[in-house]
Amino acid sequence: MSKKDKQFVEEITPMEENFSQWYTDVILKTELVDYSPVRGFMVIKPYGYAIWENIQAYLDKRFKETGHKNCYFPLLIPESLLKKEAEHVEGFAPEVAWVTHGGDEELGERLCVRPTSETIICEMYSKWLNSYRDLPFLYNQWANVVRWEKSTRPFLRTSEFLWQEGHTLHETYEEAEEETLRMLNVYKEAAEELLAMPVVVGKKSEKEKFAGAHATYTMEALMHDGQALQAGTSHNLAQHFATAFDITYLDRDGKLQYPYSTSWGVSTRLIGGIIMVHGDNRGLVLPPGVAPIQVVIVPIAAHKGGVMEKVDEVFEDLKGDIRIEVDDREHYSPGWKFNEWEMKGVPVRIEMGPRDIENNQVVLFRRDTLEKEVVPMDELKERVQELLKDIQSNMLLKAKKMRDEKTYYVKNIEEMKEIMSTKPGFVKAAWCETRECEDHIREETGATLRCIPFEQEDLGDKCTFCNRDAKNMAYFAKAY
Amino acid sequence: MSKKDKQFVEEITPMEENFSQWYTDVILKTELVDYSPVRGFMVIKPYGYAIWENIQAYLDKRFKETGHKNCYFPLLIPESLLKKEAEHVEGFAPEVAWVTHGGDEELGERLCVRPTSETIICEMYSKWLNSYRDLPFLYNQWANVVRWEKSTRPFLRTSEFLWQEGHTLHETYEEAEEETLRMLNVYKEAAEELLAMPVVVGKKSEKEKFAGAHATYTMEALMHDGQALQAGTSHNLAQHFATAFDITYLDRDGKLQYPYSTSWGVSTRLIGGIIMVHGDNRGLVLPPGVAPIQVVIVPIAAHKGGVMEKVDEVFEDLKGDIRIEVDDREHYSPGWKFNEWEMKGVPVRIEMGPRDIENNQVVLFRRDTLEKEVVPMDELKERVQELLKDIQSNMLLKAKKMRDEKTYYVKNIEEMKEIMSTKPGFVKAAWCETRECEDHIREETGATLRCIPFEQEDLGDKCTFCNRDAKNMAYFAKAY
Repeated sequence: MSKKDKQFVEEITPMEENFSQWYTDVILKTELVDYSPVRGFMVIKPYGYAIWENIQAYLDKRFKETGHKNCYFPLLIPESLLKKEAEHVEGFAPEVAWVTHGGDEELGERLCVRPTSETIICEMYSKWLNSYRDLPFLYNQWANVVRWEKSTRPFLRTSEFLWQEGHTLHETYEEAEEETLRMLNVYKEAAEELLAMPVVVGKKSEKEKFAGAHATYTMEALMHDGQALQAGTSHNLAQHFATAFDITYLDRDGKLQYPYSTSWGVSTRLIGGIIMVHGDNRGLVLPPGVAPIQVVIVPIAAHKGGVMEKVDEVFEDLKGDIRIEVDDREHYSPGWKFNEWEMKGVPVRIEMGPRDIENNQVVLFRRDTLEKEVVPMDELKERVQELLKDIQSNMLLKAKKMRDEKTYYVKNIEEMKEIMSTKPGFVKAAWCETRECEDHIREETGATLRCIPFEQEDLGDKCTFCNRDAKNMAYFAKAY
Repeated sequence: MSKKDKQFVEEITPMEENFSQWYTDVILKTELVDYSPVRGFMVIKPYGYAIWENIQAYLDKRFKETGHKNCYFPLLIPESLLKKEAEHVEGFAPEVAWVTHGGDEELGERLCVRPTSETIICEMYSKWLNSYRDLPFLYNQWANVVRWEKSTRPFLRTSEFLWQEGHTLHETYEEAEEETLRMLNVYKEAAEELLAMPVVVGKKSEKEKFAGAHATYTMEALMHDGQALQAGTSHNLAQHFATAFDITYLDRDGKLQYPYSTSWGVSTRLIGGIIMVHGDNRGLVLPPGVAPIQVVIVPIAAHKGGVMEKVDEVFEDLKGDIRIEVDDREHYSPGWKFNEWEMKGVPVRIEMGPRDIENNQVVLFRRDTLEKEVVPMDELKERVQELLKDIQSNMLLKAKKMRDEKTYYVKNIEEMKEIMSTKPGFVKAAWCETRECEDHIREETGATLRCIPFEQEDLGDKCTFCNRDAKNMAYFAKAY
């Protein structure tokens, strides 16, 4: 490693030293994102956007397989509509951007830039729904939303972000509940299969649920620094919005009924999760499932006869099934390129020089374990495909191990406080499910209730934190 | 045709009677779109959005094949940025929506909801560009934009619409010009190959060009009512924005230079074009390339033994390559379904009843010519594939014929006036290229200059409308 190469890597602050600075260094230096002239608004650069496109492709397919169709609702929502559901407006009004003028004219009613679209969508649903035969409504939209955040960080919390929001209507509570859980499960599978990001799934407390929801379900991931990330939520809205927006239909007996609704969403926040679950001090480590470039070929001594010809041959052979690129830039050394692609988290690197070609072989480097291997040319395609699968599953295992090592049981709030201040992570505890206890935990330890997981463990009859009877086992953590 | 069936079709106003009402009837009754509670903002319903998804898929592939990458820039643009390019702000300021408040706080500087993104993107480019080695910048974004329109019509002119906007930087004027024309050609191929919509391509006049552009190129289509639709534009911005935003780089000789930029976009307006080029008095006629449903199977006497089994078999056989659906709704008659799918413009209908199955055949109906044919079951797959191709090319031919029939030559402005008021369409004329003449034509005839086409014809030395020398041959029309 030349001095220049070394310096290149050392530009990233070690995560043990300052995790927040590490994150900022990684997202900027790998060109995922940039700050914009508008405070709190990010620019998603091509390398970051390509990750989002891969997430979209996976999810969009899953949504369609489960019977959903895409549509598009207006960006701007009249204030009067936002106000129709009381809890909803209370939750969102403080963080919306208001449009007050169109051209030179002041508007009669101000319009909010959608922070989420339940209100405008329900207004349309009330117009569209007539009969039980129309149900279920299974719609989704891919869109941008704006929430005026005071403190922002790219991908994790920004004043504008990209997401999808599903909005459905059903005849019965049970069907709505089934849909809510079905879509949470699609999210869980996306997180684990595509992003190699293990998640805990469960229910939010009354305090933490979505403004206007009957029940909110969530998937929670644990980051390298021991903080949790709420990575996706699915809400059973029961009849709250249907009644507020007067959505009715004639049921099988000709009676007027309110339907049950759900909504569910994931956002560009997932990209923040990928970075903080898998990244290391060299930079990004991208799971092959979402990596914009899965394999990069770096030619060695590219000017020597036969090298680029062989590189092109390998590229042509692999490109059908694999997202692959050749780094043929002439003004950078192979060492510099190795570092750059490691920093950018490309799962597999193929090194090919005159000696490799002479020996009819290549060198493969895998980003997750930093291991190298020599592979005969005629086994290359098969080996690369194996390797990508192996990296994907290894990354999930590694992330699970990391999470399990940072998951604790505590006996009381003092132990919890100690853990949160020294080695934060998930804390599993028996819980009384009271708001008072929840507020107290937050005040004392900085941790919030992440979820009451579907997979319950018996941690005794008494709440770990107070004297009340325990209602369930819950996960707590500091969170983004 | 039962009385109920007949009535169903008759709900659409004949286009000869009232073209504008015909359009409104078609878009609402086929559920492409709906009006929203916010004036001028549309809701794109699943059937309309699926057409957009098909357009996106085609274009996104073409953009990537031509070296472009997607990214995402902020929705909101500070007023100070919008003002940096003088012509640009003059063109757009009157029609932007202004955000003045975030939550409860009034903003220090108001932000406009992007009407187009040259300004915010150039601001970022000025930060990103350093060396000639970084060039070209070839980026695109898929996004929503807002333009506060006084008079709106779904798809054609709405206060919010969906589009893509490409924004590129180049070393030389020639490269920028080449890019501008390359992308216009991609649009032309999309219009003709995918949408079966013939277009005239050429250059806009100084009056009609994009605010801030050096030159604007356009593709213009002709609708059934003889009005033109500007269906896509591509702008060579020369160094206008680079100088306004101080985008500079070190060239090959180490000197500081301004790059040349381009921008180009098409929008959901294309869907309006499809409707008005191909539609008829029964409703939509969709080209197979973008039809959300290319083939619908309508079972006859579905309750009879063996019918649904055979329908499912055919569905399974065809579904791999074809967007196909089975209409197995029990509470509608086959006749009602025929009418509905004709109205919705599905290119091919397969009718299958007990007698067809007995005879080992099906009935195929094609929407473009309204013809029926009987096809032996074992030739069905091949025949359907042929038919879809044939419909696609037939629709383009038919649309070209329609356009040619509505394209006129005139001797003077009186003839032009007569044509525009009795049988509007494209008028080809020799033109002097002066603003005075252009304004006069508009005043007298209602027609605007659509483009100075690349394919020129020699129409004499003198301007058809005034005494000046002719500079070129141009297309004029009334336009949406």
